[in-house]
Amino acid sequence: MKRIAVDMDGVLADVYKQFIAYHEKDTGVRLEIEQLKGLPEFKAFPHGHRHANTRGFFRTVPVVPGSREVLEQLNQQYEIFIVSAAMEFPSSLGDKREWLNEHFPFIHWRQIAFCGSKEIVKADIMIDDHLKNLDKFEGDTFLFSQPHNSGLQTRHRRVDTWEEIAELLLT
Amino acid sequence: MKRIAVDMDGVLADVYKQFIAYHEKDTGVRLEIEQLKGLPEFKAFPHGHRHANTRGFFRTVPVVPGSREVLEQLNQQYEIFIVSAAMEFPSSLGDKREWLNEHFPFIHWRQIAFCGSKEIVKADIMIDDHLKNLDKFEGDTFLFSQPHNSGLQTRHRRVDTWEEIAELLLT
Repeated sequence: MKRIAVDMDGVLADVYKQFIAYHEKDTGVRLEIEQLKGLPEFKAFPHGHRHANTRGFFRTVPVVPGSREVLEQLNQQYEIFIVSAAMEFPSSLGDKREWLNEHFPFIHWRQIAFCGSKEIVKADIMIDDHLKNLDKFEGDTFLFSQPHNSGLQTRHRRVDTWEEIAELLLT
Repeated sequence: MKRIAVDMDGVLADVYKQFIAYHEKDTGVRLEIEQLKGLPEFKAFPHGHRHANTRGFFRTVPVVPGSREVLEQLNQQYEIFIVSAAMEFPSSLGDKREWLNEHFPFIHWRQIAFCGSKEIVKADIMIDDHLKNLDKFEGDTFLFSQPHNSGLQTRHRRVDTWEEIAELLLT
């Protein structure tokens, strides 16, 4: 059974929606996705580090459409691991664990890994929105589209939606 | 540079001392290491699951003697990752992160991974006190002696102390 390492932020968790909401609450300014394209996340969201370090930020982040349904099916055909680079934001650890439990109850705790660097991950397939994670991975790679990676030409297979992932990986 | 995956509980963190202390606080009975040898941890400590799920348990656990000094040296010669199967005890996540920060400040957050199953770990060497982690690992394995693995004959190289690890791995 092939193993897939699935990223959380930007793949299962719609962090842009959450950053936009926190930014608006803080500044009164509503950012639009269009103006954020091509910008690194913490350039797009100058208060992003502080927001991501706020307890609750990752607990209430919206779910990326389609991710729950497709992941539940993938979980029947693959060995799924949820791998999140959560260590940078210590307050996120409990939040992320609870969030997964709420929205992806079919994922057992044995299938979750919170790390710093993803270099330590052994899997056959990686789905991630960050090149820094995909570039060093030896297996098959899927780049999940997010505004920060918009327009980047890479060797990774780009996917825009979970429906596309379903088409490519479900039999 | 070779990569070493270093376990926390029973290798860096002296969980037996902590379980014994919590057990005594709860029951008034002081357990001795000798009587715990050969018993699985949660047989040795019938309230162990509850204690391990208590916030603070992993935050105040004593450090295994020698681990800090030797790990700091290993960190110069190897790529070190601290890998803890922390996911079973969600309240431990923040505690473990803070504990590492306090006692092993030279370990960067990029070098920490909290997981469920360790099957996902890619490294050259693993130091662990549990066979379930070592048995499925493909690289070199070191079994760190703890009462629960006392007397077990395995294919893994047994080490009783961090000084032994230093002798074997430091050049």
